Amino acid sequence: MVLLSGGVDSATTAAIAREHGFAIFALSFDYGQRHAVELGAAARVAAHLGVARHVLQRIDLRAFGGSALTDAIDVPKPGLVGERPPEIPITYVPARNTIFLAFALAYAESVGACDLFIGVSAVDYSGYPDCRPAFIDAFERLARLATRAGVEGADIRIHAPLIHLSKAETIREGLRLGVDYSLTHSCYDPTTAGAACGLCESCVLRKRGFAEAGVPDPTTYA
Amino acid sequence: MVLLSGGVDSATTAAIAREHGFAIFALSFDYGQRHAVELGAAARVAAHLGVARHVLQRIDLRAFGGSALTDAIDVPKPGLVGERPPEIPITYVPARNTIFLAFALAYAESVGACDLFIGVSAVDYSGYPDCRPAFIDAFERLARLATRAGVEGADIRIHAPLIHLSKAETIREGLRLGVDYSLTHSCYDPTTAGAACGLCESCVLRKRGFAEAGVPDPTTYA
Repeated sequence: MVLLSGGVDSATTAAIAREHGFAIFALSFDYGQRHAVELGAAARVAAHLGVARHVLQRIDLRAFGGSALTDAIDVPKPGLVGERPPEIPITYVPARNTIFLAFALAYAESVGACDLFIGVSAVDYSGYPDCRPAFIDAFERLARLATRAGVEGADIRIHAPLIHLSKAETIREGLRLGVDYSLTHSCYDPTTAGAACGLCESCVLRKRGFAEAGVPDPTTYA
Repeated sequence: MVLLSGGVDSATTAAIAREHGFAIFALSFDYGQRHAVELGAAARVAAHLGVARHVLQRIDLRAFGGSALTDAIDVPKPGLVGERPPEIPITYVPARNTIFLAFALAYAESVGACDLFIGVSAVDYSGYPDCRPAFIDAFERLARLATRAGVEGADIRIHAPLIHLSKAETIREGLRLGVDYSLTHSCYDPTTAGAACGLCESCVLRKRGFAEAGVPDPTTYA
């Protein structure tokens, strides 16, 4: 069970799960993002990796508000102003990974899967509370208490194989596993044609990752 | 922040939250239930209790399968066959309360609420893993790690005021607080006109609750 956004991290995570010999059940979300470009990327990555099944779950995080990724708030452009992002970025979506993992747990229990993979990194996203090892550990503990399988003794595990990797290390690992990053999408604020802005927090991290990894960045920037 | 299904337990829970002096933000789900009667009940109960805001979140648990409440599986009728339900009922929806609480947490963080109320009972629903105190405690721990508010030291609490109450005790508490149970709905398998079947697990529990509480049951049974 892999949470697949269509970005660098989730594509790499899925490739790692595949290398471990797992059949991949992928789960993506249409959560009122400002654009659907990343859902196209998720579908391309799923096909590229040969997943067993890919489910899209529609949810409405705009009903609650509170993030530049779902509201009509300008996406910050640290690449433009050269600033460090705030401690907890305004692109943080309240409880997003909790919701994503909750659905992944439901999907996993329905298909009899015990291994859930999520591509969070505490290195590059230290500002997001739900990207830290303590959060992952707490969710794993919850998952074992929350489900029929867990109660019956199944060894439910939340795998976060990138949690201690930088973006550059993630990219090197993905390339080793044959991931085609030209299929992935990271930008928070792409053009209508799907080109990356090159300036938002996510683009800046991605660019720096490819640069530090010393490999060409296959992204089309506006 | 109150999870409001429109049944006896969530209506009572909301009334308890109100008595504690909280303004109520209510959250209901359209999760591919077999009927929408309970959503009507949730709206009636919300109006009856004077909630500050009532949000309906649409999600699709049918995408994953695995429960008589969301699939084309016959709802079991213990009232018909006089049987005890199985240890974990097939009406169990995988990870449902995890998903519900995850959304409640997102909603709570968006409006600055720290107190989440859920009407689970470990007495009448001991077969559901996600109705037990250990699950509630684990989610509370997760919630403090998962959110900006929690990281910043907010005292996020998951309240489950009915967890040690029987249905009869819940009903007595609700009546003391002025809950009009004629507005609530419990049946898993109502008629098209909205009458309760009287035979499913939920109807059987409800009937027995009113009988044990020694008060008239205002439900219309088919």
